[in-house]
Amino acid sequence: MHPLDPQQAAARTWFESLRTRICAVFEGIEREAGSDAAFDYLSWDRVDPSGEPGGGGVRGVMKGRVFEKVGVNVSTVGGTFEGDFARSIHGAGENPAFFATGISLVAHMANPHVPAVHMNCRYLVTTKRWFGGGADLNPPLPVAEDTADFHATLQRVCDAHDAEYYPKFKAWADAYFWLPHRQVHRGVGGIFFDHLESGFDADFAFVRDVGEAFVDAYPRIVRRRMHDPFDEADIAAMRAWRGRYAEFNLVYDRGTLFGLKTGGNIDAILMSLPPVATWD
Amino acid sequence: MHPLDPQQAAARTWFESLRTRICAVFEGIEREAGSDAAFDYLSWDRVDPSGEPGGGGVRGVMKGRVFEKVGVNVSTVGGTFEGDFARSIHGAGENPAFFATGISLVAHMANPHVPAVHMNCRYLVTTKRWFGGGADLNPPLPVAEDTADFHATLQRVCDAHDAEYYPKFKAWADAYFWLPHRQVHRGVGGIFFDHLESGFDADFAFVRDVGEAFVDAYPRIVRRRMHDPFDEADIAAMRAWRGRYAEFNLVYDRGTLFGLKTGGNIDAILMSLPPVATWD
Repeated sequence: MHPLDPQQAAARTWFESLRTRICAVFEGIEREAGSDAAFDYLSWDRVDPSGEPGGGGVRGVMKGRVFEKVGVNVSTVGGTFEGDFARSIHGAGENPAFFATGISLVAHMANPHVPAVHMNCRYLVTTKRWFGGGADLNPPLPVAEDTADFHATLQRVCDAHDAEYYPKFKAWADAYFWLPHRQVHRGVGGIFFDHLESGFDADFAFVRDVGEAFVDAYPRIVRRRMHDPFDEADIAAMRAWRGRYAEFNLVYDRGTLFGLKTGGNIDAILMSLPPVATWD
Repeated sequence: MHPLDPQQAAARTWFESLRTRICAVFEGIEREAGSDAAFDYLSWDRVDPSGEPGGGGVRGVMKGRVFEKVGVNVSTVGGTFEGDFARSIHGAGENPAFFATGISLVAHMANPHVPAVHMNCRYLVTTKRWFGGGADLNPPLPVAEDTADFHATLQRVCDAHDAEYYPKFKAWADAYFWLPHRQVHRGVGGIFFDHLESGFDADFAFVRDVGEAFVDAYPRIVRRRMHDPFDEADIAAMRAWRGRYAEFNLVYDRGTLFGLKTGGNIDAILMSLPPVATWD
């Protein structure tokens, strides 16, 4: 992998610092619940198809009292896309060289009233350079107050950058987080964006604000809901709902496909899968 | 859907009668275990993209004491493949009209020592006409005796038809039931075959014998193993192993894809998914 240029290095550094902050906040929530659960980190290296070192990443997983299973991954990889896959990636059709750095997070919660969540931010370089990302809320048992809070927080940061962002990125999330075979959304939405290439500084500032919005909204929602009582029927509903989540990630998710196609670490890629899922 | 020609009707009738026999045998095993579990049947109709009736099927599911969850489906569908999908199907590139009839079975067992199993036989008509099918054994905790029994029974019927069948179809199963992202087979193999078009009578006779081999071997393996003691660690191992099975069916399985792409019944298509799966 080539040495990182200043933009690549800045994006990487910020994604890793966001990971560190998020993990600290999540571990703090575990303390509030009387648990000493902590993230377990595993570093992995990638070998490029060329045989050269191709970067790598760190997978973080915590299994706690509030967070039944949460994965927070960072990775910084680069090299050459293999075969046909290059043609499916923005700017890689003419030249399969690529660089990617990002953070990816999925939390499955012990209390069925606490929404599961997904967040991802990434910076990609091919013959183009762009940011992408998104965050969406996945409550097994949706509560309108939490959904409204999550969307309002995301809308606030979107609106501060571009009035068109929130409506556009919300609609993109609604289209993306959709299971056509069941004709249902996988959750209650959020934002999804890709190919943001209006200029590094402005786009990076937006992505940082999306990360901050996540750190603001999600822990608040968790703390609001983590002591709600629940019963066996709620657990059963959550596990059945998680079957839909697993279906989405294995059949449709582009991040999963990207990881599999670029030789990412399999445990890191599939950390998004729920700890327990059921199918009727 | 067009009225069935004699070959289509014969194949359909045989698949449905095999379903009826298998379900009776499986319910008999439940009786031996002191359970009164029975299959629950649900008929579904398919509407072709043309707007015409497009056939349908019957999904059978039993949740019992020995069979934690077993699905046995029959379907007979026809009409027009949509869009690009036609080009991926033998003989449908020039004309997207198709007919398909078949039986599909997946059993997930309560005792982790009893292998899960998959069996499928189908007759397809496009501008070509062929049989396909297969059966593979999926023990969470493999036992050499059961694996050998399953393979020997399949080999016996293969050898009775063509000495090349067993080695060829076993190798095909090994290549097909493989998770490249984990570099593991999903189970201990069996046979897989497709595009069998050496003549209707000979091929139909072979497919019937494959069905008979299944009815011979699998109940014997279940009865041999169903009273073996097991503990919580075995259950945990089984559920983690089922995660791999769900990954295979959602990411790679062509039968699942065929069902999703041809507007099959979603509950019938996904009956193959395990009742409970876990991911670390």
